[in-house]
Amino acid sequence: MTTKLFRHAHIYTPQLGQCPAAGAAQAEVAEWRDGSILVEGGRVAAVGAAQDVEVKVSGKNIDEEHDLEGATVIPGFVDPHTHACFAAMREGEFSMRLAGKPYLEILKAGGGILSSVRHVRAASEEELFCFSRRLLETTLHYGTTTVEIKSGYGLDTETELKMLRVIARLGRETPQTVVPTFMGAHAVPEEYRAEPIKYVTLLENEMLPAVAEQGIAKFCDVFCEEGIFSVEQSRKILQKARTLGMGLKLHADEVYDLGGASLAGELKATSAEHLLAASDKGIAKLAQGGVVAVLLPATAYSLKKSFARARVMIDKGVPVALATDLNPGSCFCQSMPFVVNLAILGMNLTPEEALTGATLNAAWAVGMEKEVGSLEPGKMADFIVLDGETPAVLAYASGVRPIRSVWKGGEGQSAGA
Amino acid sequence: MTTKLFRHAHIYTPQLGQCPAAGAAQAEVAEWRDGSILVEGGRVAAVGAAQDVEVKVSGKNIDEEHDLEGATVIPGFVDPHTHACFAAMREGEFSMRLAGKPYLEILKAGGGILSSVRHVRAASEEELFCFSRRLLETTLHYGTTTVEIKSGYGLDTETELKMLRVIARLGRETPQTVVPTFMGAHAVPEEYRAEPIKYVTLLENEMLPAVAEQGIAKFCDVFCEEGIFSVEQSRKILQKARTLGMGLKLHADEVYDLGGASLAGELKATSAEHLLAASDKGIAKLAQGGVVAVLLPATAYSLKKSFARARVMIDKGVPVALATDLNPGSCFCQSMPFVVNLAILGMNLTPEEALTGATLNAAWAVGMEKEVGSLEPGKMADFIVLDGETPAVLAYASGVRPIRSVWKGGEGQSAGA
Repeated sequence: MTTKLFRHAHIYTPQLGQCPAAGAAQAEVAEWRDGSILVEGGRVAAVGAAQDVEVKVSGKNIDEEHDLEGATVIPGFVDPHTHACFAAMREGEFSMRLAGKPYLEILKAGGGILSSVRHVRAASEEELFCFSRRLLETTLHYGTTTVEIKSGYGLDTETELKMLRVIARLGRETPQTVVPTFMGAHAVPEEYRAEPIKYVTLLENEMLPAVAEQGIAKFCDVFCEEGIFSVEQSRKILQKARTLGMGLKLHADEVYDLGGASLAGELKATSAEHLLAASDKGIAKLAQGGVVAVLLPATAYSLKKSFARARVMIDKGVPVALATDLNPGSCFCQSMPFVVNLAILGMNLTPEEALTGATLNAAWAVGMEKEVGSLEPGKMADFIVLDGETPAVLAYASGVRPIRSVWKGGEGQSAGA
Repeated sequence: MTTKLFRHAHIYTPQLGQCPAAGAAQAEVAEWRDGSILVEGGRVAAVGAAQDVEVKVSGKNIDEEHDLEGATVIPGFVDPHTHACFAAMREGEFSMRLAGKPYLEILKAGGGILSSVRHVRAASEEELFCFSRRLLETTLHYGTTTVEIKSGYGLDTETELKMLRVIARLGRETPQTVVPTFMGAHAVPEEYRAEPIKYVTLLENEMLPAVAEQGIAKFCDVFCEEGIFSVEQSRKILQKARTLGMGLKLHADEVYDLGGASLAGELKATSAEHLLAASDKGIAKLAQGGVVAVLLPATAYSLKKSFARARVMIDKGVPVALATDLNPGSCFCQSMPFVVNLAILGMNLTPEEALTGATLNAAWAVGMEKEVGSLEPGKMADFIVLDGETPAVLAYASGVRPIRSVWKGGEGQSAGA
């Protein structure tokens, strides 16, 4: 077991039990100006002020010692909402959207989610893996050490299982920790357009049991939205997923206030995501249900929409997490630093709130709070060395990558992008 | 003289005489799907469709041939407004601003422009050069091949000349083309606070003549703003600069509509910059005077302000250029891709308008339109190979660096950041 010591780090980290997702009233971040991190077997053995860590070090054989020369260190980013398993870009569709073409015309021209479905169905498992791995390499370069990935570009049992196998392989063969989410309820496929209810039945009776049997999805997510899945349909699908042992997530109130946030609260889902149109009532239900709000500022930005009401949610006691929403259509964003930047400058979060949202609250949103999201003994030694004086450099240095190095499980990462 | 041929490029470039700064009604961009660029001695010898360039190639000895494999190529970015000569970051002040501390308190705590003045006065010429060179390396990594740099953190004759010598040295010793601007009228220094008019007199009678004598400033710029330099003072300073042979620029109507845009129009200045508060009348005067509006969306974003009214300016016939405003206080932005991204998604420019604004219109704004800003015979072979299908990838791929390589004078650049 390799032992490594990182000295002279200016450490900022939220702490388990003291973040909003654990019930704390506000995001507080511990800071050690001359801090050390002792890593054993890829996990944090000790972290804190240099003299406190020194006690744990004494008598140990240190295999590697790194002097961080006072640089700022934060936990690796946890990206709790991505669709980072796909097989083709949709830049052409983005340009059509910029030119003002209505979404219906884009759909007619072969764009939209169903375009990704065609590509993913047509791709071999190897092609899908290689394309997605390249996306993850870029996210790692930008500091993402744990990433949730949703299926949902298959929309038939076979292709959804293919996606989940690829997502599992990404977890095994990339440095990152990957959390798999089944999202067969991402859209109604073309072949069921005339009778969408039959697709809901397929989800309940065939797809969800097949996914559960293989044990390759930790969560189930549903796109609850006007014209996609209704609140009633979403409830049925999620209740079935719960009986099969999956955690619950919900794409809620992105375009219309359909009541998705209230449903997430009622079901005590792990998270509700998007929430651009969530009402005060929906927000209150999230707070009551202990649901983490996963906000996606890069998506709002990319679609030229207003941001989710993050400050209201925080003030009402909803824990806020931040994610990229990485997907080929509405938001091709591979950078958590950019998301943090938007959260601070666009959504008026404090640097402490944004940092907690992108690390520990995000870990809660994917049920990984005991493993990742903060620098604490026993957790994975995932961290980022920043090129700045405090985490606020993520907002100060707009548009660049203010990162010196990324460490996953105590190993330095050098993926370029 | 080295001859290089770049083949299989998907080229997008504005063209001299067909851009708004040259009087064209709208930004048009030439496109060659299978294009070639022939480079001789660091300049474009021929550019266009492969078969057209082939004619010029025949009989020539090609020293280097590069197959770009269909990648998208655009001209190198011209950043026409920076303060990229300074000696210390001001991240702590940024954090105070985020925490809601009023600017006056930040000033009292030693922040603001005058903090940069203290650091620049205290720095040796070598220190100032090394610090600034590192900034330019990052901007080059993000595709900036020509950059304007303003003095204005000296505010006394000696230090302003020191800055301009450093800026000249940056032009000689970095790969980038550097355009020097004298901006002694950036603020009133502390020692003249009681009698600011004496500083205006110093500018006219001592500083400007000293700068002109050394021939190290192409432009003179003035911060025309409530509480800084009045319209009357700005006019006097700029008129003096004109008699000394300098081109004219103006920081105009950034916070208040003081009439700076109108003054720029009256003087037929080369450019007016910021313009967040410019009135309809001011915009009309810019159009009448043939003044390029240099807009700084990253500054508005970083200060949480509304963007300049770019669409109105374009519709009224004002040529719009884009710049980073790179400085340690209001906007520490080293990335022209981020500026283009904001221009498209925040200011609603089309990709063609944003590309032209960041290249050829920007070259006009620094009097370099015959040298840089577009890929045309005789101009410098400055270009960027993008990682996307069209220039719209700069907005599609938010928060990352969608750049494969940067070429300055036909030489590949590999500065990391």
